[in-house]
Amino acid sequence: MSAPLPSWRDGAVRNAILKFVNDVTRDGSPSYVPPEARIAVFDNDGTLWSERPMPFQLIFMIDQLKAAAPQHPEWKRNPAFKALMANDAAALARNETALLQLLEVANSGMTTDQYDQSIRQWLASARHPALDRPYTSLVYQPQLELLDFLRANGFQIWIVSGGTAEFMRVWVTAAYGIAPEQVVGTQEKLKYVWRDGKPALYREPGIEFNDDGAGKPVGIFRAIGRRPILAFGNSDGDREMLEYATGGAGPSLGLLLHHDDAGREFAYDRHAGSASLDKAWDEAAARGWVVVSMKQDWKAVFSAAPARSP
Amino acid sequence: MSAPLPSWRDGAVRNAILKFVNDVTRDGSPSYVPPEARIAVFDNDGTLWSERPMPFQLIFMIDQLKAAAPQHPEWKRNPAFKALMANDAAALARNETALLQLLEVANSGMTTDQYDQSIRQWLASARHPALDRPYTSLVYQPQLELLDFLRANGFQIWIVSGGTAEFMRVWVTAAYGIAPEQVVGTQEKLKYVWRDGKPALYREPGIEFNDDGAGKPVGIFRAIGRRPILAFGNSDGDREMLEYATGGAGPSLGLLLHHDDAGREFAYDRHAGSASLDKAWDEAAARGWVVVSMKQDWKAVFSAAPARSP
Repeated sequence: MSAPLPSWRDGAVRNAILKFVNDVTRDGSPSYVPPEARIAVFDNDGTLWSERPMPFQLIFMIDQLKAAAPQHPEWKRNPAFKALMANDAAALARNETALLQLLEVANSGMTTDQYDQSIRQWLASARHPALDRPYTSLVYQPQLELLDFLRANGFQIWIVSGGTAEFMRVWVTAAYGIAPEQVVGTQEKLKYVWRDGKPALYREPGIEFNDDGAGKPVGIFRAIGRRPILAFGNSDGDREMLEYATGGAGPSLGLLLHHDDAGREFAYDRHAGSASLDKAWDEAAARGWVVVSMKQDWKAVFSAAPARSP
Repeated sequence: MSAPLPSWRDGAVRNAILKFVNDVTRDGSPSYVPPEARIAVFDNDGTLWSERPMPFQLIFMIDQLKAAAPQHPEWKRNPAFKALMANDAAALARNETALLQLLEVANSGMTTDQYDQSIRQWLASARHPALDRPYTSLVYQPQLELLDFLRANGFQIWIVSGGTAEFMRVWVTAAYGIAPEQVVGTQEKLKYVWRDGKPALYREPGIEFNDDGAGKPVGIFRAIGRRPILAFGNSDGDREMLEYATGGAGPSLGLLLHHDDAGREFAYDRHAGSASLDKAWDEAAARGWVVVSMKQDWKAVFSAAPARSP
């Protein structure tokens, strides 16, 4: 067998991961955890793939909004829509609530099967604006190795994201080897309906459950029913998830990815809006969470060389 | 290998199950379904175990209410509480909303860990009023064999119940071999809190998602993300789940258990309140759902000889 985590640099962080996994899996270890309780939860945006300039699902939703605009001439008078089309960041910030409402409208009013097709079509052609490659090639190679290493050691891996499971399920199996039913996310309103003589689920505007911040432990409990023993996040939205996972009676490991690598990806932490790593970072030392430096601890960032534009 | 489904009588119903599983699993079959899409969903109450005189979780919740009564002297003036203590069915029916509110109060106001302990304690000592045995011995032997048979053929099995996952997760692995995270249920309100210096989930009164009727396809989609190809229920609360599972493009099997066996279990169908099998029964013929007669199609009902009271 080759050494695990080849894209992780030798050092305290890689050793902490190897030691934890060894401690909870070694027969006779005082920290032994049986396989069914080896639950690992990973945030998605900024933890398993990039999230700059904004979470990719938001880019998809905005593209859906722009595509739907011809059917909505009334939007031309909407300040949020005008700000979006003018790329006016200040005006967008002033009209955030109105923008979210427009996004909800543009991303509802169809069946889940129809929406699934839209996601697939978008993923097949959309490219990251700065890194110029398909979004699904922006997954982190060291994290793929960590997922493989955990699976090989009997861990059950879940994604717990502020995005929706619906958006992620389309691609997470190919990208991460994670099954669609192991994804916990924000939940939008759905209604059971008959369409064209077939039963279907219809997307209505509005959020029913927000799987972020203090929502993450709730989402985890509802979907899994067991407290995770490993949690990996990258922002304040993951703080409560890490507290919950590392606040049980047994052994646990909390990990935070620090985006400090402007050369290979992006550098942002305390002042990055909804992607900020600030309070969680402050808590890390007190709770023994491991802060992973993208720049120092990862030999590589992305899973493949950048794809060229056609 | 021994023949599958030994407690199922030879006949059209057993043959329909065997044929469906053979059709979707046989290499080269025109109805072949790959293993990852072999999703089977089972209702719990009345489908995998008994539900008379009322769903057992409701009996548990009432026992919690009675146990909490000494701390709530104000309940003595509550008509629903008085009707409950007097076993007055007519008065209970008149005060159903008030009773549900009392049940919510008595079953909230503690952490999920504390509530989990209450469920475990109750299960260890409570006995069915008429059948005089622990509730967990009221699971159906033919269904255990069906679950085994489906698992052996690569199916992933989920429970989709009007009860809560929290109540079921405690015992479903021992009873059915189903993992806690494969249970979809009604969701109560939860709040992330710190208690005694530890992160916890606190139960608040109220239902956030009702996993019954038209809620079941929504619960299935959110938890699994794929349309099941087999659904097994027993009442009108399962109707939309069966429609959804059998309304896709590919092969599917819908099954309804008919409680027609007063000698070995209970007999009820069209006029059984929330447990009625009425509209779903009417739909069965049109949609090709298989109606399973407990009396005709099952050689045995319960998984073991009745336990005697101490």
